Amino acid sequence: MERIALKVEYDGTNYCGWQRQPKDITVQEVIEDAISKIQKQETIIYGSGRTDAGVHAYGQVAHFDSVVSIPADRWKMVLNDNLPEDIRIVSSVKVDDEFHARYLAKDKTYKYVIYNSRVNTAINRNYSWFVPYKLDIDKMKHALTYLIGEHDFFAFMSTKSSIENTVREIYEARLVKENQYFTLYIRGNGFLHNMVRIIAGTLVDIGRGKLPVDAFKTAIESRNRDDLGDTAKAQGLFLMEVTYFENLEEKLVKTGRKVLT
Amino acid sequence: MERIALKVEYDGTNYCGWQRQPKDITVQEVIEDAISKIQKQETIIYGSGRTDAGVHAYGQVAHFDSVVSIPADRWKMVLNDNLPEDIRIVSSVKVDDEFHARYLAKDKTYKYVIYNSRVNTAINRNYSWFVPYKLDIDKMKHALTYLIGEHDFFAFMSTKSSIENTVREIYEARLVKENQYFTLYIRGNGFLHNMVRIIAGTLVDIGRGKLPVDAFKTAIESRNRDDLGDTAKAQGLFLMEVTYFENLEEKLVKTGRKVLT
Repeated sequence: MERIALKVEYDGTNYCGWQRQPKDITVQEVIEDAISKIQKQETIIYGSGRTDAGVHAYGQVAHFDSVVSIPADRWKMVLNDNLPEDIRIVSSVKVDDEFHARYLAKDKTYKYVIYNSRVNTAINRNYSWFVPYKLDIDKMKHALTYLIGEHDFFAFMSTKSSIENTVREIYEARLVKENQYFTLYIRGNGFLHNMVRIIAGTLVDIGRGKLPVDAFKTAIESRNRDDLGDTAKAQGLFLMEVTYFENLEEKLVKTGRKVLT
Repeated sequence: MERIALKVEYDGTNYCGWQRQPKDITVQEVIEDAISKIQKQETIIYGSGRTDAGVHAYGQVAHFDSVVSIPADRWKMVLNDNLPEDIRIVSSVKVDDEFHARYLAKDKTYKYVIYNSRVNTAINRNYSWFVPYKLDIDKMKHALTYLIGEHDFFAFMSTKSSIENTVREIYEARLVKENQYFTLYIRGNGFLHNMVRIIAGTLVDIGRGKLPVDAFKTAIESRNRDDLGDTAKAQGLFLMEVTYFENLEEKLVKTGRKVLT
């Protein structure tokens, strides 16, 4: 037995998200089925976290246990031969038997892409959120500063979610404008369900003057979802990178916590 | 009657190219059908030129004659309401009755996108050509200098083509590397069928050392298609911009030619 970690890129357009579901086709399911076929036994893969339907990833990380004699770095090629074109294994490496793609994740980086123009883009329509309003980038950049640091992001969560610990730390939140695109890069030690999309939706409302520049600050304090804007569309969101603690010990020392969910 | 010029963006993935065909669905056909429906009479649109199946456009230009009382700049919205998401009218303007999207075209800019990595991209797979070989960018940049100027590009043409005048002028051919992407920008007074894709395919062969750095020069002189590389895949090609002569007179003066086909 050898534990293998995969770095996965996928186009989420045609999937009902990452996590296996009873009915709809998901990225996890497609990869699990490919591995199970190759190993000739049912295999589970563990991702760093879910992504919603339509959300993309350049750097999702998942692990599984290999029970066949395929060298770790060959799994990449073997899997790519058995996967559809919209899911690619970017790398496959042997990891410690205690590695866990979800529980040992240290930080995650997402990007959210806004297409700001009078007419939507035909070519990039599945990889950005179309926003036809005039946006004030200075206000948006200012607003992002309120997110930095450790805060209770209770308000920044899908109401479907029932997680208990809603404190997260945001290390970086950067907005870059290039031609008609506004791209948000955000890095933190974890994100609640829909958190990045709620941040992106609120950011647009701040940029167009519908919400005040300090809306993020207000919502952190009030813990009230109503102080924020709508959840931005899924197709603008990309999971870019996940970094990891070496092991559980390092995690416990550095976070001072028992369990991060 | 009012002549309207349209700037059109399209994702060519699901179309059998620009030009109307008896069987397969094309971009021209979809736009013509939308206009015909709105005008309640069959309307023909004239594009600046064809694009092949799978080729994209950010700036295709086409014209048609409006016979209804829709102001020129409203056509954009009216059409977008009647077109699929992968075809967008970026702008619609009234032009002179003598304007012709094909015959008065002055120059065209294309870009060709190469994805250079060990594993193909899942997300951008329909918008780039996957090339897994190591590429020498200096050789490629040097090679492009041989294209600049007025040359007989007879060798740079699909063998299906039977055009007579194969002399074209290339004003600019620039290669930009960003992360795993090599992007070629090329501007000229016209391009033969498959010319940009043959240039891109040859450029890759030069970059990987399969063809000499002066392959373009050799082929211009020999007029022999065999001195060039394969035709690069359609999905990496984008028609970016078309510029126009004011009128036929300007064209005749500036080109010193009777007809450019």
